[in-house]
Amino acid sequence: MVVGIEKAVSAANSVVSSAKKTPTAIPSDCVINLARGDPTMYQPYWRRMGDKCTVVISGHDLMSYFSDPGNLCWFLMPELDDAIRRLHRVVGNAVVDDDRYVVVGTGSTQLFQAVLYALSSQDNPDTEPLSVVAAAPFYSSYPEETEFLRSGLYKWAGDAYAFDKDGAYVECVTSPNNPDGTIREAVVNREGGKLIHDLAYYWPQYTAITGKADNDIMLFTFSKATGHAGSRIGWAIVKDKEVAIKMVKYMELSSIGVSKESQLRAAKILEVIAEDCVNSGPEKEENFFEYGHRLMSERWEKLREVVKRNGVFSLPKYPRDFCNFKGKDTDPSPAFAWLKTKDGLNCDNLLREFKIVTRGGTNFGVDSDYTRISMLSVDEEFNLFLERLAAIKGTMNGNY
Amino acid sequence: MVVGIEKAVSAANSVVSSAKKTPTAIPSDCVINLARGDPTMYQPYWRRMGDKCTVVISGHDLMSYFSDPGNLCWFLMPELDDAIRRLHRVVGNAVVDDDRYVVVGTGSTQLFQAVLYALSSQDNPDTEPLSVVAAAPFYSSYPEETEFLRSGLYKWAGDAYAFDKDGAYVECVTSPNNPDGTIREAVVNREGGKLIHDLAYYWPQYTAITGKADNDIMLFTFSKATGHAGSRIGWAIVKDKEVAIKMVKYMELSSIGVSKESQLRAAKILEVIAEDCVNSGPEKEENFFEYGHRLMSERWEKLREVVKRNGVFSLPKYPRDFCNFKGKDTDPSPAFAWLKTKDGLNCDNLLREFKIVTRGGTNFGVDSDYTRISMLSVDEEFNLFLERLAAIKGTMNGNY
Repeated sequence: MVVGIEKAVSAANSVVSSAKKTPTAIPSDCVINLARGDPTMYQPYWRRMGDKCTVVISGHDLMSYFSDPGNLCWFLMPELDDAIRRLHRVVGNAVVDDDRYVVVGTGSTQLFQAVLYALSSQDNPDTEPLSVVAAAPFYSSYPEETEFLRSGLYKWAGDAYAFDKDGAYVECVTSPNNPDGTIREAVVNREGGKLIHDLAYYWPQYTAITGKADNDIMLFTFSKATGHAGSRIGWAIVKDKEVAIKMVKYMELSSIGVSKESQLRAAKILEVIAEDCVNSGPEKEENFFEYGHRLMSERWEKLREVVKRNGVFSLPKYPRDFCNFKGKDTDPSPAFAWLKTKDGLNCDNLLREFKIVTRGGTNFGVDSDYTRISMLSVDEEFNLFLERLAAIKGTMNGNY
Repeated sequence: MVVGIEKAVSAANSVVSSAKKTPTAIPSDCVINLARGDPTMYQPYWRRMGDKCTVVISGHDLMSYFSDPGNLCWFLMPELDDAIRRLHRVVGNAVVDDDRYVVVGTGSTQLFQAVLYALSSQDNPDTEPLSVVAAAPFYSSYPEETEFLRSGLYKWAGDAYAFDKDGAYVECVTSPNNPDGTIREAVVNREGGKLIHDLAYYWPQYTAITGKADNDIMLFTFSKATGHAGSRIGWAIVKDKEVAIKMVKYMELSSIGVSKESQLRAAKILEVIAEDCVNSGPEKEENFFEYGHRLMSERWEKLREVVKRNGVFSLPKYPRDFCNFKGKDTDPSPAFAWLKTKDGLNCDNLLREFKIVTRGGTNFGVDSDYTRISMLSVDEEFNLFLERLAAIKGTMNGNY
């Protein structure tokens, strides 16, 4: 199955004509980049909200480094702390009792590194670097974020399934998992292990909320919860005070805190979402998570249909589960499609020939017949992606 | 000269009565923290500007990770890039020709670390860590920011004056210097050296602008330029494309870019300042830098008067210089007072007994008879600081 670039362009061009039927802002022969999970699909919802989430910031506002000098996390704005805890209570996806510490970060990316620092600088001042593992397929940035500064505190130790070293380690548990959407638990489960729970996708638009997560260190991010990636706001919910203190120390040393403008806006938006969820009733407009879940379900249905029809790829199947938030059984609709070629071809390369840029399986510690595709792009891009994916079958048939 | 805590409290209480004459929001017996350079003194200026610098951000704005996908620094908002270059042109403090790269960061703190990564991961993939030095007294955070992750790429190598290792190194040149306000140049000047110019304080309110800085890597920060520390915005102006690319890579790995809300607001505020500077005339209100310089000059005059009168401390003297921006000779008025006890006592400890918290000389690589005091606090705090400083003499006299 060799697909020449001419055929790919021709296939792409054939999409042009049908795409032109409905006017689109995206040139239909352009490259579609679905490699990064840029969550732009939620924008129409926020546009519809009008001024409800608008923040107005004067020139003299938010000037000091400090937000709450008496708080352990002195740069966390109290209104954001409140909004985070309230939303988790309303959604029921995490325990946020008063004895838990909230640490805000410049996205959960910075917090992940803050946790590595906190866990590794705590107990082993002079020993060898702490091993960091995650079960494959794992989030593609974990290895690079762990390795790029060649820290003597921690080092990437690869697939948790293959980890057999004794002693202290850190396991990253991403659930639902990025890239493959599965619900996960720790796999190493040995003495001396510490866990980071990356719960970026544990929200009702992506999965059933089956209970309040109650882990030692839980990471969430504004990007995936509401689609506001440009704000770079993440938060950690932490049980242990010493870990929280060390994380705050990391934030001080790496950036002296976190943008207050972003914190203020995140607080406002999270407040509005929580309020809308509480007020939802038969006569009310759908709340953010209902909207998100409806869109994601529709996209997954369309994608599964295209994949089924063209016969070239497969997708994971997910069990239905009862969602406490929605109050009914729901199908998961992950933020990424974990696409696999049935015949073992390099899935990322194949899609690139059709001008669809994705992130190949090897980035996630598995084979290249897998690739990860963002499901969170704008409608026009997602529809063009489906058209191109559907076109692969037509083009392939001769060689297949 | 041993000052008991009772005496200190008594001295502090004696300040209360005089402080009470003019009502103040700060309890006059409270601890004044001048250890961090929180630039809250500029707030009245920004309040006076009314809505001129107000930004309004709707719920659907600024959602994507990307700001300018075609730019090397893809997360930098074009309006911030423009505003930064325009302000430097108006002030005349840095070369910002089109062939220079602007990289935005979460404060210049994050950018400092991005530069270390860029310079160390570039040329020496497997050799020993790159030495990082700065001439004492140096910014107290450089050692910790360089060391805290025990990177294999770079390591803190102390005072540049004492550095005698062969081979590659990085020298941080802070000018005007933090903590002591002096104008600086590189001191090592050897083959294989690379320079980071930290120009956080090279603005007209602190020093004479004597020419456009034209160094390879220059760091600036919104905090010290305008007083907006809570926004966490810094920028680097970089000559070498490969260095800029590596810095952007660091920003991707450490936080996937920089808050767009903060960038938008910084763009607005820098634009307004530049516009006001250009429009200044005899009938116009004073521009931001004129305001800042007037306040700083007044504070320095008062401080020098108190120091002269009580005889316990000394302050550095700075040469007058012609400021191209102001068009006249001016006295420097640094953001920090670098206070020294005349008799060699621990200056930080002495001030703490009078409930003034500062950052002692040993943090900056010199003796404890020096301490650094922020000159950028709000008026009430600064005045209370002066009163307590003046009171030290009276209390001391018995033991002195």
